[in-house]
Amino acid sequence: MKFHTEYVTFTTRREHEYINMTDKVEAAVAASGCREGMVLVSAMHITAGVYVNDAEQGLIDDIEEWLERVAPARPDYRHHRTGETNADSHLKNLLIGHEVILPVTAGKLDLGPWQQVYYAEFDGQRPKRVVLKVMGE
Amino acid sequence: MKFHTEYVTFTTRREHEYINMTDKVEAAVAASGCREGMVLVSAMHITAGVYVNDAEQGLIDDIEEWLERVAPARPDYRHHRTGETNADSHLKNLLIGHEVILPVTAGKLDLGPWQQVYYAEFDGQRPKRVVLKVMGE
Amino acid sequence: MKFHTEYVTFTTRREHEYINMTDKVEAAVAASGCREGMVLVSAMHITAGVYVNDAEQGLIDDIEEWLERVAPARPDYRHHRTGETNADSHLKNLLIGHEVILPVTAGKLDLGPWQQVYYAEFDGQRPKRVVLKVMGE
Repeated sequence: MKFHTEYVTFTTRREHEYINMTDKVEAAVAASGCREGMVLVSAMHITAGVYVNDAEQGLIDDIEEWLERVAPARPDYRHHRTGETNADSHLKNLLIGHEVILPVTAGKLDLGPWQQVYYAEFDGQRPKRVVLKVMGE
Repeated sequence: MKFHTEYVTFTTRREHEYINMTDKVEAAVAASGCREGMVLVSAMHITAGVYVNDAEQGLIDDIEEWLERVAPARPDYRHHRTGETNADSHLKNLLIGHEVILPVTAGKLDLGPWQQVYYAEFDGQRPKRVVLKVMGE
Repeated sequence: MKFHTEYVTFTTRREHEYINMTDKVEAAVAASGCREGMVLVSAMHITAGVYVNDAEQGLIDDIEEWLERVAPARPDYRHHRTGETNADSHLKNLLIGHEVILPVTAGKLDLGPWQQVYYAEFDGQRPKRVVLKVMGE
């Protein structure tokens, strides 16, 4: 049984950013030497997400607007009594999810033709880590 | 270590449809010969979801109405500048999730009494694939 | 290859409750003897969730308020024609998710410094189960 673990660090220029990290996941799968298995891609932060969807900029802008509508930035969250200002980033993380687990088949990431893996930053401009763990044979 | 991979294709008659696929997941677990492990059930499309909940038609109608309220169909999404008309289907996919991973114990899908696995189609009337991968021993 | 399965039962005093269960997940990882692998933490009910976020009470209250705003309790859900009154608990389960899968590295739960595993009860005051399954080596 094989395991391969990598940590990827993103330091975004903007507070919110959407980064296509499919190539990094494919590279981790290749480095693992696994022909069959699964790869976990998981943000190590509670104000960032990982999701699978389309690499189309219009849609990415729609996703950003949708997240803001459903989990809006507001001054009056209770979490802000601690001095924090990012409660909405936590809610966006819960809405989109912090991890995906993807199948590996015949040595490749087994995704549909339009499925791309995205890191979604909701509180950036500082180093944030994502763990990639491949498990298989 | 055992791996078993299946691809299930759904071609729904309606644009939106909710299909109980628990029997297909159970069959994949049985075919795998695994006594212990996990099974990944993952839509290979970015306009469909997979979730676990109740096989009760009233609730399914409530879920459809809720998804439409939180991630509504609208003409003015930016994604539609590409000629597409289904941005809301992408948002519904993100809201409900595109995959679940389920425990296998003593050769069976280890779910609670009311947990059923559903395929949720948000842009149907064409063949769409779901990958089932069992991994274990 | 090693497998370790545990069932944890929560009987909350209130209808809605948020319980930090990180210590129970850490104990399951230790009991498994796995140095490398993954641990699945999955509610066995369709009216409860499992998520990863902060152990800060203000934020937990924000999460409760947000779930109520996006998936509100209402009398008129179709599911209630069956005699049930908890359709919103099902929608909250779908919104926050019923399971997480977490990496195990060097014998430890491989989480970021603020990541805590929560059980979210949306229909409590009775025994509800969560399955923890560790798989690895």
